[in-house]
Amino acid sequence: MRAEALLLFFSFSIGIVTGDWNILSYTTKKRDHHQHHAGISLKNYCESWRINVELNNIRGFDVVPGECVGYIGKYMTSTQYKVDVQRAAEQTTLFLTNNFRLGADGKDAWIFDIDDTLLSTVPYFKKHQHGAVLGCRGATTNSTSMEQWMEERSAPAVEHMLDLYHEIRARGLKIFLISSRREHLRDATIDNLVKVGYLGWTDLILRCAEDCYHAVANYKTEKRRKLIEQGYHLWGIMGDQWCSLVGHPSANRTFKLPNPMKKAL
Amino acid sequence: MRAEALLLFFSFSIGIVTGDWNILSYTTKKRDHHQHHAGISLKNYCESWRINVELNNIRGFDVVPGECVGYIGKYMTSTQYKVDVQRAAEQTTLFLTNNFRLGADGKDAWIFDIDDTLLSTVPYFKKHQHGAVLGCRGATTNSTSMEQWMEERSAPAVEHMLDLYHEIRARGLKIFLISSRREHLRDATIDNLVKVGYLGWTDLILRCAEDCYHAVANYKTEKRRKLIEQGYHLWGIMGDQWCSLVGHPSANRTFKLPNPMKKAL
Repeated sequence: MRAEALLLFFSFSIGIVTGDWNILSYTTKKRDHHQHHAGISLKNYCESWRINVELNNIRGFDVVPGECVGYIGKYMTSTQYKVDVQRAAEQTTLFLTNNFRLGADGKDAWIFDIDDTLLSTVPYFKKHQHGAVLGCRGATTNSTSMEQWMEERSAPAVEHMLDLYHEIRARGLKIFLISSRREHLRDATIDNLVKVGYLGWTDLILRCAEDCYHAVANYKTEKRRKLIEQGYHLWGIMGDQWCSLVGHPSANRTFKLPNPMKKAL
Repeated sequence: MRAEALLLFFSFSIGIVTGDWNILSYTTKKRDHHQHHAGISLKNYCESWRINVELNNIRGFDVVPGECVGYIGKYMTSTQYKVDVQRAAEQTTLFLTNNFRLGADGKDAWIFDIDDTLLSTVPYFKKHQHGAVLGCRGATTNSTSMEQWMEERSAPAVEHMLDLYHEIRARGLKIFLISSRREHLRDATIDNLVKVGYLGWTDLILRCAEDCYHAVANYKTEKRRKLIEQGYHLWGIMGDQWCSLVGHPSANRTFKLPNPMKKAL
């Protein structure tokens, strides 16, 4: 029932979504900057930035380049973004259907990121120009306003992910949420997750105090290592940044949601 | 000089390129197929396929979905593809400038794929509907015609990669070409590479006989392991498929060129 309801909402929302993103909507020619890109349109430039973030070629950026803020923002609020997420969710289901068999030991596990995987930070970035804040290096200078927004507990679910979450849980997998949110946001995070429909996880793992000075990638691999030591079989990780997915130990499969807003390690 | 010449050619070619790709050029609504995508345009559907291949969420496909062949083909022959590749090359240069220091032992190394990394297979796919042929699983049923085309030694260089190749070589790095092309194509491959300007590699590693039944990812990690055993420091791998980049041992960094035509393991 949830699937049908979401599908209806999704089909409906296609009609009303504003700011539909397309790579033709930016036709301004670049002039002085980036001499090597002379003659290339701004849309080409910003699209190449976006795809190279997703290919994990561009790493460690602090914010989206100023001239691409509008382009990236439109993508994140477009029908295309929703369809891209839906496709990733479908691939996850396909993987589990073809490969997953529930073991007898109750130790089959799945890992999710939170921000821009289960909960959307797009409403925050709409206010703050789509600059990256909580990336693979953890909190940056803008983190105070980001954390204030998280305290409001008003993040909506990323479309299609609520369904996927419950589908994975229904298969008998234990769900672990490993987030780079800090420990003091625990109550707000739980409230927000429950409010939009995420329930029944096995553990919610947040950073700090002792983790705060680790790079996020190291923090996440370390938490995975501990789960494996506890006997868990990690079937998959779903995240929106490469730093949540790379490094060892990993899982049988990883799935990356699109997210050109955040920096990767 | 080569850089300027290529840049001129590139700037010129922007004006004359035909079939400029954009995600608005497919407005046909899907009707019966993919009920879950009802109401979504074909461009949304094909673009979500493309991005999920690049995110390494869609793996092991045999061919590009029939309804997306035109869309994918247009991307591969578009200005956008060239700009995306250029951006990846720039990121590689940036990485080396910031991180690479030539050692005294002459063992600093860089690995390249060949097809759709140094040499373009787009002319082949233009004739053959952009179906995947030489993917991470190695040769498939269409491999005969692909290999016949490779025997013709007529593949052009991927734009921007010739510059990058020579820049990396000029920094003192030893270049290793690790390809899933088979051994019987050695002469044709060398001829083709030299003809378009790739010279001075340290070793060209092809598959078979004994490797032919390995998955390509295993074959490539195995060859990297051997290089490391020989004392090489692997600074980077540049390839167009995830199966060329993942697995251990890896390199300090990996760079992936866009390629939605080929399947990944």
